[in-house]
Order: sequence, then structure tokens, then C-alpha cells
Amino acid sequence: MSEKRKIGIAGASGYGGGELLRLLYGHPFVEVVWVTAHQQAGQRVDAIHPHLRGFCDLVCVDTSANPAWDSLDLLFMALPHGESPRLVSKLPASLRVVDLAGDFRLRDAALYRKFYGGEHACFASQKDFVYGLTELQREAVQKAHRIANPGCFATAILLGLGPLIAEDITTGTIIVDAKTGSSGSGAQAKAGTHHPTRDASFHAYKSFEHQHVPEIKQLLYDLNPRWDGGFVFQPHSAPMVRGIFASCYVTLREAWSSSAIQNLYNKAYGTSPFVRLVQGSPNVLWVRGSNFADLGFVVEDRQLIVFVAIDNLVKGASGQAIQNMNLLFGWPEQTGLLIPGACP
Amino acid sequence: MSEKRKIGIAGASGYGGGELLRLLYGHPFVEVVWVTAHQQAGQRVDAIHPHLRGFCDLVCVDTSANPAWDSLDLLFMALPHGESPRLVSKLPASLRVVDLAGDFRLRDAALYRKFYGGEHACFASQKDFVYGLTELQREAVQKAHRIANPGCFATAILLGLGPLIAEDITTGTIIVDAKTGSSGSGAQAKAGTHHPTRDASFHAYKSFEHQHVPEIKQLLYDLNPRWDGGFVFQPHSAPMVRGIFASCYVTLREAWSSSAIQNLYNKAYGTSPFVRLVQGSPNVLWVRGSNFADLGFVVEDRQLIVFVAIDNLVKGASGQAIQNMNLLFGWPEQTGLLIPGACP
Amino acid sequence: MSEKRKIGIAGASGYGGGELLRLLYGHPFVEVVWVTAHQQAGQRVDAIHPHLRGFCDLVCVDTSANPAWDSLDLLFMALPHGESPRLVSKLPASLRVVDLAGDFRLRDAALYRKFYGGEHACFASQKDFVYGLTELQREAVQKAHRIANPGCFATAILLGLGPLIAEDITTGTIIVDAKTGSSGSGAQAKAGTHHPTRDASFHAYKSFEHQHVPEIKQLLYDLNPRWDGGFVFQPHSAPMVRGIFASCYVTLREAWSSSAIQNLYNKAYGTSPFVRLVQGSPNVLWVRGSNFADLGFVVEDRQLIVFVAIDNLVKGASGQAIQNMNLLFGWPEQTGLLIPGACP
Amino acid sequence: MSEKRKIGIAGASGYGGGELLRLLYGHPFVEVVWVTAHQQAGQRVDAIHPHLRGFCDLVCVDTSANPAWDSLDLLFMALPHGESPRLVSKLPASLRVVDLAGDFRLRDAALYRKFYGGEHACFASQKDFVYGLTELQREAVQKAHRIANPGCFATAILLGLGPLIAEDITTGTIIVDAKTGSSGSGAQAKAGTHHPTRDASFHAYKSFEHQHVPEIKQLLYDLNPRWDGGFVFQPHSAPMVRGIFASCYVTLREAWSSSAIQNLYNKAYGTSPFVRLVQGSPNVLWVRGSNFADLGFVVEDRQLIVFVAIDNLVKGASGQAIQNMNLLFGWPEQTGLLIPGACP
Repeated sequence: MSEKRKIGIAGASGYGGGELLRLLYGHPFVEVVWVTAHQQAGQRVDAIHPHLRGFCDLVCVDTSANPAWDSLDLLFMALPHGESPRLVSKLPASLRVVDLAGDFRLRDAALYRKFYGGEHACFASQKDFVYGLTELQREAVQKAHRIANPGCFATAILLGLGPLIAEDITTGTIIVDAKTGSSGSGAQAKAGTHHPTRDASFHAYKSFEHQHVPEIKQLLYDLNPRWDGGFVFQPHSAPMVRGIFASCYVTLREAWSSSAIQNLYNKAYGTSPFVRLVQGSPNVLWVRGSNFADLGFVVEDRQLIVFVAIDNLVKGASGQAIQNMNLLFGWPEQTGLLIPGACP
Repeated sequence: MSEKRKIGIAGASGYGGGELLRLLYGHPFVEVVWVTAHQQAGQRVDAIHPHLRGFCDLVCVDTSANPAWDSLDLLFMALPHGESPRLVSKLPASLRVVDLAGDFRLRDAALYRKFYGGEHACFASQKDFVYGLTELQREAVQKAHRIANPGCFATAILLGLGPLIAEDITTGTIIVDAKTGSSGSGAQAKAGTHHPTRDASFHAYKSFEHQHVPEIKQLLYDLNPRWDGGFVFQPHSAPMVRGIFASCYVTLREAWSSSAIQNLYNKAYGTSPFVRLVQGSPNVLWVRGSNFADLGFVVEDRQLIVFVAIDNLVKGASGQAIQNMNLLFGWPEQTGLLIPGACP
Repeated sequence: MSEKRKIGIAGASGYGGGELLRLLYGHPFVEVVWVTAHQQAGQRVDAIHPHLRGFCDLVCVDTSANPAWDSLDLLFMALPHGESPRLVSKLPASLRVVDLAGDFRLRDAALYRKFYGGEHACFASQKDFVYGLTELQREAVQKAHRIANPGCFATAILLGLGPLIAEDITTGTIIVDAKTGSSGSGAQAKAGTHHPTRDASFHAYKSFEHQHVPEIKQLLYDLNPRWDGGFVFQPHSAPMVRGIFASCYVTLREAWSSSAIQNLYNKAYGTSPFVRLVQGSPNVLWVRGSNFADLGFVVEDRQLIVFVAIDNLVKGASGQAIQNMNLLFGWPEQTGLLIPGACP
Repeated sequence: MSEKRKIGIAGASGYGGGELLRLLYGHPFVEVVWVTAHQQAGQRVDAIHPHLRGFCDLVCVDTSANPAWDSLDLLFMALPHGESPRLVSKLPASLRVVDLAGDFRLRDAALYRKFYGGEHACFASQKDFVYGLTELQREAVQKAHRIANPGCFATAILLGLGPLIAEDITTGTIIVDAKTGSSGSGAQAKAGTHHPTRDASFHAYKSFEHQHVPEIKQLLYDLNPRWDGGFVFQPHSAPMVRGIFASCYVTLREAWSSSAIQNLYNKAYGTSPFVRLVQGSPNVLWVRGSNFADLGFVVEDRQLIVFVAIDNLVKGASGQAIQNMNLLFGWPEQTGLLIPGACP
């Protein structure tokens, strides 16, 4: 690698941007050269992210500022939902892009309107994006130029359900009960993540209407067009900062042994460096800060429960975005990402 | 009330015992006169429970010590599972008892052996105990002399499912995904509740085999012998101290409106002072420290999700035990218990 | 008590207001009849404070609304700092008032300006207020008509230092290192109490300039005009919701034995129901939700360290406000307040 | 680096061992070839530390097993206090050693007995060890063969006080009020780190007698033999997992400006890659998982308060141990350690 690839980040002040910066500083083949922020334009990156002091002296420019685009090899967009389309419309077609927001994940404009609200500012560009659930889309990502990075819940759930749906071994409605940490709500203070009311709190929200449902169903249908689509997703807020834990309740067409399910997942993920199969239940603590998705299951007769634990900010956002970048550039998928989290 | 009833507590050093003491000190009609502990015999109660300093000067006697039993009007047993039967065999038949452990809940000795392990030291006495899920068993409790107080998970789940099963409106397998705080594991330090590994941790455990399953099914069958028994219960450990949050996924025989479900629960719990119906999701934080069970639900066509939040140590243990005591003595159910928790 | 006293609360939507409501619903001699809020005017109290459902059906009126003032026996003001003076200027002189804010605590207008910023809207009324650190001001409170309720840090620190200064046994600069939970920052979401950045966080703030310093020094000088005034106060944010823990480092004029210090505090607080002397260190967990101040100390030769733990929202705010109300009305100080917190 | 150095870890099952493994897997010049455990001998390292799955397939041998010692280039000892001396007595004199326990830190055997209790099994070897507070001892460490790695509190406090004492600018007693997370108590479950009683808890402990006091005073005297030795250290337990926050209250001989203090610390640490000077207060969250020590201060006339935040398991233990190893081998101090923590 004679020269490092030049990377820009639009939206460096949020948690997605912060994690991109943290991980990219350890990546051997890239250099972050341009970062933007809106409210915090003009500030140094390490004033916004004090844990990064000593690693960079970049200053955020306003998100509306345009760099010499051809000086960038790839742009990460870690903007609030709805802002990516406005930026994409200004980008040269040749620029590689990984978008962490939800704007380019859905191929159906009507579903976008229903789940995200409002019109899409640049829906014509949606077709340029490949949905980047890396382990289930590896070949498509390798050939892609632009990536729509999956949502955090979608990542955990699709890793759990993808191989089952692809093999067509389920029947009836799948129930997914998922739990997320508070960092999933972003870096802006708001009522739902006020410390006194979030600590020691547990509750459900967004029943039947979470915006990750359509991207989950879209990919599951891609994996198996005959899938019947029975799918209930109930997210919950858990009193932790990082982590998604998804419990997926699946009825099998026929009884499977535990070792047969084990084989199925081994076949699906045996060459995927970031999916770790565990006995029984994984734990969000074991993947915190890392790009791993730990997957476990229990099965009794036709009742299967699959558990997936990820760090919502890493495998559920910035880590997977870098994993996809690696494939875009033809590097090994795990480059710069094979780092265990600190535990406990 | 000319004279206060005299109460004994066997097992005062655990969290169940501590909460009995906290709540009974505010109860107008009773006086705690005798408390036991095993390892901490000889210690003052307020040395074991420093938050109770200023409220009592009782000293714990060894659990094997026998008081003049006829000086007690009622005995709470808050002992580790398996120890209650040994004590019960020594008690005069006339003594009122509320047992917080699991030993007298199951009418089927084979199920007891399967889920609790080992032989029951006094199974002949099981028939003397009424299962004390107060809201669903009020009349039986009022006539009872001895109460088997329900398990914490069972309380939350039965409050959510009881009215649905009684009305026979469900079909197929019910999925219950429940989450508990660390206090449910008791006051003894152990690996699973070591602070560094429990904080920021979320994981599943005891798939398909939790000991509360048989008591849940037993009461649901009592409420509706035609129920088909499809029931999957998956408990999870959440990084909080108090609280159980149960998400119950139920398929209805036919589509129900939200207001019809509301009416069904209103009918079931309209006169129950401790069940509060909420719009949408309850929150464990809102019931912490109190005897309330907050119940909410969402329904879409035939898919119903019922959420129940309780404090596992209060409505899930000591509070409900006192609620049952009130009925045993013929007092209003809410006597001494109508106290909001401190929030946040 | 033939008829209950009628109580109003200006500012019922914050944590101070919520705790007043929680505690007053258990008070035998009062009835809350009028509550105000600003942004949440028109909402039911139990919509703002869901843990209070079932206890009240009051609706908040706008804080600028004026009731028939003579229908109230006492008004609690739990408003943001700076708003109390505006309300006080409208009140009939006969109305009893307990103000939880900082506006009427300081007798020196210059200090008020320096520490609170801006002009005081009604400084002429300051002289009508007695500083309500109950245990150190009991006689003045009993004779008072209006109370300036102390700040949370000030309460903990003054309880620890008051008897030492009054007895004039210290020398040199007193160092107080205090730690607070996030609820002290109030019910409005803000950056400093955003869950992801407050959980697992510990830091210092407001060095040398915390607004509780002048009220602490004012009362210490009242207790001993010869005190030399050497006092450094450093607050810290701890990753918990409730609680203040103050560690007070004091140099004694001469060596004291532990039992002599014990006697000094016993003499000071022997008849105070809410100060509990403990061996060694208290713990904020033991006082959470209660009006207790647990006080411990260690001494070695001339070096004394005094530890005080309180719940900032109870003894540090609403509980002490009610304690002062009890004295205003001539009731026993502990009326309605002798309640242990739930622990753990 | 033609060949990687071969590293052994005695005591791989605790948090110190786990962090050594995590960090050494990212180190470019070493390979861990031998690990021991006592109770968990025979288990794979990644069964004990599930977050390390995918990084190693080593199996722990019993700590009493002896490898071919000359196959190791360096041995880390992360054993419980008191066990290191027994192992050291068996080691070949040529083997490089970094000991994370307290056994070889104190040059005064009487102090060892007083603060650690019991006799030292191999005190004659103490003189072979250099006290490895890297930033203050860099030259000695570079020439050393064996290192006694400092205690976690000692590291934070010495980094804050060392330059002040070395420059002899303080007078009178220094007060240090320090706060630690629960991981400092180790990986074994015990009452003081039981989740229900540690969460939401804050208390002081070990007043005047913490075992890190003598190593702190020993190095401060080394830095300035004229120092008067006035030093009070009060540790506290905070409800977090990782982190030490030390607040050091120092009286200066004369008034210093903020910029002068800034210069003093810049001079002391300008070439130290792991000490980051911050404006005002640091935060334990910013250093979590990393080897950084963030240091801030405030000064007003002669009153200086210095704040130091470290991760107790990294800069306070395993990270500093690796930093010392780097110097032992003549590598750049930051090799393998320049990694930001994940935040939030």
C-alpha cells in the first residue's frame, strides 16, 4: 500500500462519526482528511470527542462546505436521516460513498415515505446503493460503488434470521423482541435519554412501526422470495449505553436438532470473521466496542430462539461501514477491525 | 384495631425479608416481633439492612430456633427454595403462613422435582396452600389460611395473560420475553451478579426450563381448562437492580380493537388497586419500590403484545405477600401498601 | 386534626415538585389542592409523573395563574432559580411559604448577584425568610413564616460541619469534596445529563464558584462568628441518579478521640430524627428515597474526615421542605416523613 | 523485528490478565505463549474471557506448572497479592519480569508487613525490581530487568503530585480524595461488588490505611527527600466499572498562576505520550479502555486542585505494565498502546 486512501466524513460530531474516527485511526490503509459538522463547525474534532485527543488535529467544516471532491477516495455520510439525499445530489458520480443513515436502504419509495416521513430529496440515486449487510451481501458489496449501511436493529436481526429464511426452514410469524442501549438515540440530549429517567428504566416503544422493519423484510425477501413475511418486531429501551440484543422466536417447519442448526449457521458464517457462534446466549458486554456479532441459539423440537448481540455503534453502524469500505477497496474485510472490546 | 397482629419473618436477611420489614414498618395493623436469619443470626436487623436504621431494634435469631408459635398471628417465610418445607413441618397447623419461596406453589410433585431438583420435605402440606396471585385468586386467598406467594416472573406474566386465557381469546403458542433486574438473584454475591460483569450486560438464560413455567401453566389451566398450553418463556438479565418487564406476544383467535382489549382488562382489574392500565408501554422505573403492576398493550389485527412492569421485590415478592396477608386477616387489600415509589 | 391544611405547589413538573407530591400524599395532615407548571400547564400531574398514577387527579395550571390565595395554608415554590422572587411579589404577606430555590437564602444582595447572576426581582422580601437547615435552625424555623430551603450540597455539608464550627474546634482550611447524582441537574434533558455521557462518567465541575458556597459560609458564620472562613468546595458528578456524598476534610485544633467526636455529634443530633450516626462511612444507597442524613467520620490525631450522605431530592430538597413545613405548622418534625427508602 | 518476543502471563483469569491479553494481541512485537490460572486451569482463555474469542486458542495451565523458562522473554505476573514472591523464587534470574501485584513495590519490609499483612516469601528479590511509574521513572525503567508495576490509585495520584513535589512547591498536608470503579476489586464476586448493592452506591472505605499510601510516599520522597510527608488519602467506591478519578488538594508555598502550573506540567509530561493535559476537569469516560492519564487542574491563589483520570485496569495496571515492557525491550514506549477507548 504505497499511499493511504483519503477519506471524508460528513457528520463527524455524532456517535457514528466519532466511532468512524476512532476506528479509522487504527486502520492501516486510510487517512481521514476532511470532516464536517453542522452546529459544531469550526471546532476541533477532539474538542467534540475528548477521548480522541492525541489522535487528530482536524477541524470540522460546515456540512454544506464542498471540498475538492476528487481529492477524496471515499465519503462516509453519518448524517441525521433525511440529510444524506441532499448531500448525495451534489456529489460527483465517481465518488465512493458509504451512507450510515436510512435514506438509501429502501428500494420502495412508498415505504420510505411511510417509515421516514416526508419526500426523499434524491430517490433517483437510490439504485446506486447496495444494501451493506456484509455477511449476507458480500458479493454485491465487493462489486458496489456506494453502500447503504444497515440499521443497527436490522443488522442484528438479519444476521440471526438470514440463514434461516434463505434455507426456507421457518413457518408462521417470526417474533423479534430486541433491546437497545441509549447511544442508539444519538449524541443530542433528549427526554428519552435523560440520565435520571433512562438509568434503571426499561420500556417498549415503536410497536409495529419501527423504521428498520422494511429493510429487514426487503433483504429477507431477497434471500427467499417465497418467504411468507410474517414478522413482528418489538424494540425496547434498556438501561445501558451500547448494545443491541435481539431475541428471535422462530417456528421451524419441522423439528431440528441443535447440531443441525449449528451446522446451518456454521455454513452461513464459517468464513465471516465477525460472526462468532456461541453456546447458549451471547452477551452485549462481550461485543461492546468491537465489530463482532455474537450469535447463539436454543432449539426444542420446532421452537427455535436465536440470540444476537452486537454493539449498535460498531457492527450496527461505523464498524460495519468500515467493513464495507474494505470490500469496496478490495482489502480483506477485517482490515483495521479485528480488535476486541474492553471487557468488563 | 385495638391490638396489632404479631408477625414473624423466617429469613429476614435476604431481599425478600428486607422488603417485608420495610413495608411492614409502615403497616398500621401489624407488628414484627420475631425474625430469623441463618448466617447472620445474632445480628441486629438494621446491621444487615442499614437503610432500616431507626425503625427497629430486632435481633435475628437462628432460623432453627422455635419461638412460642402461638404468640405469632402470621409467619412470613422468605427462605431459600427448599428450606420452607423443613420449617413448615414444625409449625402448628393453626398458624397462618405466607411462603415467598417456590416450595408450595406446585400441586404436581413430579413437576416440583423436575424444576426444583430433589425431594420435597413436606409435600403433604402443599394442599394447605393457596396460590396467592392476588388479583386472579382473590376469593381463594380470602378464604385461605396459608399462601404460596407467586414467583416474580409468574406474577408479571400471569397478570398479563390471565384475563386473556380466562376469556379464551388466544390461539397458538404464546411467547413471553421477560427481563429482570439483578436483585432477583438474591442478596448473596455470585458470579452472575458481580457488578463489573452485570453492569452494561444483557443476556438470556434458562431457556425452556425456568422454574416459574409450571406455576404459570398451572394457574392458566385453572383459569381455562381448555387452554391449549402453547407457552414459551425466555428470561433475560438486564443491567438494572429492580424490575421485571414482561413482553407477551399473543395471537388472538380473531381481530380485536384496542378499545375492546382495554375493556377486557378494565373488567378484569377495575377493582384491583395495584394494577394500573397504561397507554402503550409501562416502565419498570414507574413501579420501582411500589406494589403496582403497570400493564399496557398494543394490538394490530390478531397480533397482541401485552407489557407488564413490576418491582420484582415488591409486587413480585414481599408486597404481594403483604397484600395476601391483608386478605387473610380480612383487611382491605391495599392496607399499608398504597405507597408510590421514588422516581427517578 | 379536624381538617387538612391546604397546600399549593408552584412548579410541580420538576423533580422537586414530584417529590413534594409523592411525600405529601403520605402526609396525614395536608392536602395538595393547587399545582402549577409552565410548559406542562393543562396536563394531569400523573401524566408528568407516571409513578404517581392512582394518587391524584390534579391538573397543572400555568404558574402565572393566581388562585384565591387565602384558600391556601402554605405554598411550596419549586421553581427554577430566579422565578421565585417574581411570584413572591404577588403573594399576600400572610401566606406561609417554603421556597426550594436559591433566591431567598442569601442575606447579602451582592453575593446573590455574584453567584446567581442578574438582579433579584424582590430582594426586599429576603428578610422574611428563615434559612431552613432544620437541624441547625430548629428554633428559628419554628417561629418562622417563610422558609428558604437549603441547597442540596449545602444541606449535606452543613450537617457535617455545623457542630464542628459551632464548637470552634477546627483550624485552617476545610476541604469538601462532594459528589452528586444526575437528578440534581433537574428534569430537563441537557448535555451534562445525557445518558450515554453520564453513565460510567466521573468528573469535577464548578471549582471555587458553586452557588452553594455563600449559603454554607453564611450559616457557619452565624454558628460561630469567629470562624476563620477557610473553605474549599469541589463538587463532582457521579454516575448515579440520586444522592449526595460529601467528604469533609477538617484539621482540628488539637487531637480528638473518636469517642469524643462521637459525643459531639450525639449532642448535636441526639434529638434529630433524621440524622443517623453511623460507624465509618455512610452510603448514598442507604438513604435513597428517604429524608435521612447518614453521618459518619474517621479521626486520626488532628485529622478528621466527616462523611455525609443524603438523597439530594429528599433531605436535600423536598423532604427537608416538608420537615420545615411541619415545624411551621407546629407538628412533630417527622410527620409523614419517617419512611425508609427502598434498598437496594 | 524479525521474530516476536515470547511472553508468559501468570494469572490470566483475572481482570489484569484479561487486559494484558487484550492489549498484547494488538502488539506488533510480542506473542503470548504461556498463560496460567489457578481455579480455571485447563480452560481455554476465551472461555474465561469471552470477549477474546477469535483471538487466541491458548489453554490456561496451573500456576504452579513450570514452563521451560528460557523459552520466555518476559513474564507478566498478574497474581493475587502475596503469590508473586512464591513464583519469583522459582524463576531464573535472567528472566525479565513485570509484576502487577503489590509485593515488590516497597523497599521497606516493615511497611510491607504493615500494609499487606503476613511475611513476604522472597523479600531478598525486592531489590531487583524498579518501581514502574513510567513517566516519573523512565530512565530507571529503561535500565531495569524487573519491574514492580504501580497500584492503580498510586498511578493516578503520583502522576498528579509527582511534578509538584519534585519542584518542591507545596506546603502542608496534601488531601487526596479518590474514587474507583468496581473492577478494581477484581474478577471474583464478593459482597462489596454485588451488583444490587454497588449500583447506585457511593461510600468511602479504608480511611488512613490504604495499601497504596506507602508506595506513593516512597516515590514522592525519592523525587524530593525534603518533602514534609503530609498526605491524607481517602478512597471511595463509585458506581461505575472502570476508572479512577483522583482529586488532589494542594496548598502551594506561594500563589501560582494557571499558566505557570500549566507550564510546570507541560515540562514534566511534554514528551510523555500517555499524559494528556486538559482544561479543567478530565473525565474517566474519556480514558476508559485506554492507557491515557488525563490531567487537569484549577488554581486560585495558593489553593491548587489537580484532577487525574485513568482507567484502573489499563494505565492503572495492564497498560502501564506493557508500557514498561516496551521500555525493558528498548521499544518506543507507546508501541501497541496508542489506542483510544470506545466512548461513550
